[in-house]
Amino acid sequence: MKFSCEKALLQAAISTTSRAVSPKSSIPALEGILLEAGNELRLTGYNLETGIRTVVPADIQEEGTLVLGARLFGDIIRKLPDDIVTFRADHYMVNITCGMSEFNILGTDPEEFPELPTVEYQNTITLSQAKLRAMIGQTLFAVSDNESRPIHTGSLFEADDKGLTIVSVDGYRLALRHEAIDKKEGAESFSFVVPGAALSEVEKICSDVDEPAQIIQGARHVMFKVGSTMLVSRRLEGEFLAYRQAIPRNNTIHVVGDTRALLSSIDRVSLIISDKLKSPLRCTFDHNLLKISTKTAIGDAYDECPLEGDGGGLEIGFNNKYLMDALKAAPADKVRLELTTGVSPCVILPTEGEENFLYMVLPVRLKAGE
Amino acid sequence: MKFSCEKALLQAAISTTSRAVSPKSSIPALEGILLEAGNELRLTGYNLETGIRTVVPADIQEEGTLVLGARLFGDIIRKLPDDIVTFRADHYMVNITCGMSEFNILGTDPEEFPELPTVEYQNTITLSQAKLRAMIGQTLFAVSDNESRPIHTGSLFEADDKGLTIVSVDGYRLALRHEAIDKKEGAESFSFVVPGAALSEVEKICSDVDEPAQIIQGARHVMFKVGSTMLVSRRLEGEFLAYRQAIPRNNTIHVVGDTRALLSSIDRVSLIISDKLKSPLRCTFDHNLLKISTKTAIGDAYDECPLEGDGGGLEIGFNNKYLMDALKAAPADKVRLELTTGVSPCVILPTEGEENFLYMVLPVRLKAGE
Repeated sequence: MKFSCEKALLQAAISTTSRAVSPKSSIPALEGILLEAGNELRLTGYNLETGIRTVVPADIQEEGTLVLGARLFGDIIRKLPDDIVTFRADHYMVNITCGMSEFNILGTDPEEFPELPTVEYQNTITLSQAKLRAMIGQTLFAVSDNESRPIHTGSLFEADDKGLTIVSVDGYRLALRHEAIDKKEGAESFSFVVPGAALSEVEKICSDVDEPAQIIQGARHVMFKVGSTMLVSRRLEGEFLAYRQAIPRNNTIHVVGDTRALLSSIDRVSLIISDKLKSPLRCTFDHNLLKISTKTAIGDAYDECPLEGDGGGLEIGFNNKYLMDALKAAPADKVRLELTTGVSPCVILPTEGEENFLYMVLPVRLKAGE
Repeated sequence: MKFSCEKALLQAAISTTSRAVSPKSSIPALEGILLEAGNELRLTGYNLETGIRTVVPADIQEEGTLVLGARLFGDIIRKLPDDIVTFRADHYMVNITCGMSEFNILGTDPEEFPELPTVEYQNTITLSQAKLRAMIGQTLFAVSDNESRPIHTGSLFEADDKGLTIVSVDGYRLALRHEAIDKKEGAESFSFVVPGAALSEVEKICSDVDEPAQIIQGARHVMFKVGSTMLVSRRLEGEFLAYRQAIPRNNTIHVVGDTRALLSSIDRVSLIISDKLKSPLRCTFDHNLLKISTKTAIGDAYDECPLEGDGGGLEIGFNNKYLMDALKAAPADKVRLELTTGVSPCVILPTEGEENFLYMVLPVRLKAGE
């Protein structure tokens, strides 16, 4: 194998594919990147759950395949001068030169690198990278980390004529984002669940640009195509929460608040709550005002935040982190909070127009004196 | 105790004094900041080795003293809105209000907070904060972390008519910085050794400004006065290396190199050296050229760096980290390397003019094939 290519391009490709490389594995090949020089130069990282493959513009003088330790390969290329890198492999002996720098390191057998699963196109969604990235980022936090319900360790993707809806739930809260899409091919409506770990990588691969990203659903896998990079992940199997029924939409109390002001107030009161000293936030929704207080062994804290609307004095307890996660993710400067009683969920929505996001947080029972 | 003061000023004072607070101590008071409201509001952190005290502009309505947990106090003040903070303490019960926010937390007995040592003025040095900060930063890395020679876990401060010299040594290398000072009071020449841990804090307290910093040497302690903040540290006792005799100054080989280019070359070759796979850099000083190579179980690496001057083919081995530390700290774009043989130290100096820095790195014996 022999090729030469620009240092910066190779560096970017290694950094992208490295995201799917196991940092530590009993199979050494899984700690490496598969290099394939054929018609084009392809780099692949695969940890048996998620695989990332990207194409690098390169001048290929001799074809070949090889696996190279991802960390060392990345470090070497990153520190080389900004110049053309020449890569030569004779069996497993790799020679890398660039400017006055030269490295001789050992690669491993590409036969030991597991094949990426092939995804048979069933249904396809196309939307902008920026939109996909935002949608994932604004729902991923609510994915469950509890392995006893594996299906909820991923996000539900639902596509129909109205667009794409992404939903994450973990038993205590729900995060939903909806957006129109550019194109849909295949079935009229379809849905699948993508593991949270894979989505976290898709979020990083997508840039904040209008360029399209493609999501291709196969029978057991899903593929994300972003520019010259593609990510393959297995799909999660199982029965996802029937989320539409779970969201109460006849709430009697509607109040509107400034997202950042709400966050600051909750953040301050949360100072005396810790992993050891847990305590719910006691929220009282009054006329044009939200009062937040809590009490732990450290002391007590109180804060206020102006609201528009009347909560009628409703008192409700929340886990501070869940409420903050939802407010941090909400893509709006102002949000509408919908409530009914102190034991029913709080729904967080856009103040007006399209309902392109919805967060739901379940309340925590308050004890007297908390 | 009752006072009110601007949030930003209080926050800065807590952040400064917190540097000398023990993160975890069997004496709870040592995890706290001592607040003293008298004629002025003073905050003190003290970990029995280093003490930091600072004065905050405040409107004191009622005098008093109290100790408050540094982390919680800092977190609360940091997250408060930018407004006037009102602080009230009734016995140990502390009430903090600011805007609509209110906290009630418990302080502890100031009697349990150890007294800062008093420093009797013997000798005083005055120089700019920026200069002191740079001098410390550029020598601190060579302070020893080997407790078997406690005196070398600090830096030597030497003051005389020519200025201030700071020297750190750790048995394998030496770092020296010299600068003129604004003022010197007391003895004609004097010297003392300050623990590295204290210097690391002094470096952070000093700003990059021309405002003066004062160094006051007492019998057993040393005090740094920087603006309204002062830091007290014990002095290290013992016999510091007679460093002047240790530095060879009749080196026969003089070459000049670009500091950043040297660093890049060494950095690249170092990629295949790790804590597990140690190997010295094999440096060959040729005519106008430095060749650097190394070999470990990972593979081999080679790099070149242009130099001005003739090394006559001298081959010498170095610990890559020591050489890089010295080059990173050297306050010059170009440095002069002085060498004599492959077993005598390498001295790194300014290329011309005043000798305001000097680094020395001892060589490592090279084995054939390394």
